Amino acid sequence: MGETLNIALVGLGTVGAGVIRLVEENAELIARRAGKPIRIAGITARDRAKDRGVDLSPYEWVDDMGEFATREDIDVVVELIGGADGPALTLAKECLSGGKAFVTANKAMVAHHGLDLAQRAEQAGLAFKYEAAVAGGIPVIKGLREGAAANRLSRVYGILNGTCNFILSAMEKTGQDFAEVLAEAQARGFAEADPSFDIDGVDAAHKLSILAALAFGTELDFDGIERSGIRKILSADIAQAAALGYRIRLIGMAELDGSNGDARLFQRVHPYLVPMHHPLAHVEGSTNAVVAEGNFSGRLLFQGAGAGDGPTASAVVADLIDIARGEIGPAFSMPVRELDKVARAETGHRIGKCYLRFEVADRPGVLAEITAAMRDAGVSIESLIQKGRSPDGSVLVAMVTHEGPESAVAATLSALKGSPSLHADPLVVHILGD
Amino acid sequence: MGETLNIALVGLGTVGAGVIRLVEENAELIARRAGKPIRIAGITARDRAKDRGVDLSPYEWVDDMGEFATREDIDVVVELIGGADGPALTLAKECLSGGKAFVTANKAMVAHHGLDLAQRAEQAGLAFKYEAAVAGGIPVIKGLREGAAANRLSRVYGILNGTCNFILSAMEKTGQDFAEVLAEAQARGFAEADPSFDIDGVDAAHKLSILAALAFGTELDFDGIERSGIRKILSADIAQAAALGYRIRLIGMAELDGSNGDARLFQRVHPYLVPMHHPLAHVEGSTNAVVAEGNFSGRLLFQGAGAGDGPTASAVVADLIDIARGEIGPAFSMPVRELDKVARAETGHRIGKCYLRFEVADRPGVLAEITAAMRDAGVSIESLIQKGRSPDGSVLVAMVTHEGPESAVAATLSALKGSPSLHADPLVVHILGD
Repeated sequence: MGETLNIALVGLGTVGAGVIRLVEENAELIARRAGKPIRIAGITARDRAKDRGVDLSPYEWVDDMGEFATREDIDVVVELIGGADGPALTLAKECLSGGKAFVTANKAMVAHHGLDLAQRAEQAGLAFKYEAAVAGGIPVIKGLREGAAANRLSRVYGILNGTCNFILSAMEKTGQDFAEVLAEAQARGFAEADPSFDIDGVDAAHKLSILAALAFGTELDFDGIERSGIRKILSADIAQAAALGYRIRLIGMAELDGSNGDARLFQRVHPYLVPMHHPLAHVEGSTNAVVAEGNFSGRLLFQGAGAGDGPTASAVVADLIDIARGEIGPAFSMPVRELDKVARAETGHRIGKCYLRFEVADRPGVLAEITAAMRDAGVSIESLIQKGRSPDGSVLVAMVTHEGPESAVAATLSALKGSPSLHADPLVVHILGD
Repeated sequence: MGETLNIALVGLGTVGAGVIRLVEENAELIARRAGKPIRIAGITARDRAKDRGVDLSPYEWVDDMGEFATREDIDVVVELIGGADGPALTLAKECLSGGKAFVTANKAMVAHHGLDLAQRAEQAGLAFKYEAAVAGGIPVIKGLREGAAANRLSRVYGILNGTCNFILSAMEKTGQDFAEVLAEAQARGFAEADPSFDIDGVDAAHKLSILAALAFGTELDFDGIERSGIRKILSADIAQAAALGYRIRLIGMAELDGSNGDARLFQRVHPYLVPMHHPLAHVEGSTNAVVAEGNFSGRLLFQGAGAGDGPTASAVVADLIDIARGEIGPAFSMPVRELDKVARAETGHRIGKCYLRFEVADRPGVLAEITAAMRDAGVSIESLIQKGRSPDGSVLVAMVTHEGPESAVAATLSALKGSPSLHADPLVVHILGD
């Protein structure tokens, strides 16, 4: 690496264009902080003709992104095309074997292939960095990899998907139901035409798997994440939660249970009831926030914009500045061979409270049937049974349980399965514990 | 540096003991993350005999801390004795000229001598690190130095003193006045016997000056901080603020006004009214939080425990892990010679709202006198005049102004100065703007 950090940009969507704007606008400041200027030595994307709102004429366009992997005048390739496999992954491998440092915002690829890529980077003595893959502009990868590095972390969790948080916040404010708010968000460009990656929790799960590996020093285990999204949340649930002193947030939660020898990894993306005294209850709109709990640091919170061209570009260029400074240690905080391979936790043993909501027929005996099933499974009701009416005229019965094992709640639901009294699958929302 | 990072600990108060516990308890994890073990190769403190709750017998005690500056078996000296000048500063200089990296939690020393020390470290090619000096366990130095490094930052501000926030939160909850809560906090060990460093804002100012230099790439200017503390806040002020939708927090606020050529640095430690929708309004107890606003990242928030042995030790050891990893760039994010020397901002031009509270005599005409002074100075009242009674029986008149220049508020107070209608100096609390 010489007096300039020469980068190639692959992918010129909103984030790619943001990186160009950032490198241009803050050029002088970046050079002072990085110790050398960052120069965009080459660019490429699918469609050369598309107007991206930035002037591409100063930059050398190549048609074949693979060229960057071997060109002598490139130090770092920045990948912003996305997709877990396919061209992004091929490019990553080519770059790391071609002697190029690699920076990516591609959470799906890191979640699925991060260890393989990290190992290739280690062997080649190259940087592999992905700050922009998790929580946009928030430097939480750095926060865990370095800031909290002295700690044994017991939990890492947070609001990892801006679209879901935007929708839940809007439901909270307007009282509208999920479908209405989603349609509006799509019309205004805050949600994708196919929103399933966001609202079914896949995007949050990608990010959670990365945070967990970093926090706990364990191997990535995306497939081990228990996942559900926010489609089933009704405005009535949000109102009930508010009456009980909670807000509903889609939380990615990872926990390392047990001690060294037989540690187990728990990972879940699920709506949670968050008590109002918890900082995550006050995270509104498309903001993201991550909490990490260390055995010496206590609870750390990192919060900011979780997406968007500016914040994501900020994270990409932070990685580039690190590389320019020569700060290029292991991508997952320790060499891949030292990461622990741990078994998945059994969720049934987990102790907690939860919110249960049933859509039931409006006739006598239904409540008795539900509460009997709860009694038989050993689930005790904390305090509250509220009734409301669902959009289709069913009666809504909502309650909060006392602390107890999740297996008991599962047993209740399984006993009630197929009952003609229930008009829909019950909703289970866990309550975030301290 | 060899296969082990050998450190010397100078100062064995609660933080020093915390570092020993942390290095012992998390030894295996630290070695995996740092790439090598951290070994405590020497310790010293004023009193060898004192019981610190940790077993010191495994460690070599020296009587003269200066020894560490030249001993061949030491890589890093960790200074935890405190004080801006005196032994800590002497030690720092000796270590950096003796070839030892230097890690400190000493905010006063960094605020006053940070540039000198950073320059010595640069010349010697050594690390000079101080994560623990600001906001305890929160990795905010790293967050600004590296995480937000791609951004031009316009503002950095936050809750930087846990004692003040603890007192203000307690006043909020109990309705007690400042003196009562302080006495309780002292009795319970949450406030020093001589609390003036905390409650008069000196401690927060030390931290603010460091954050500002890092965020803006400007020279440290501790003396340029306009500072007041929380002694004058009455429980009535907190109640009025709450009625208006605000909480009162002691905020350290730094802003770089204007563009490159004629930039000016604004730094203030002062109580602020924080609107309830702002995350800082929800920071309770002794928690700290720092907000940084970047031109690409948007608003970033870092929150956590601002003091205590565990969190502070976590920050100290994070610095040590960085050093073990070879990540030892410029202490203020860029070489000291590249930091801008900027003039201080004139606060009179600043535009904002504020809360004004007068303790006045209970007789006709007083309100007319105050409002006339405001009218004459061009200060307009937004909406609200509340009355209450102060502890000594005076009447309290509180109001919130419309947005306007601070000079107009100053002119009002100066016109009223010496008026027999006022029983005490009026209280001015700025309102945190978006």
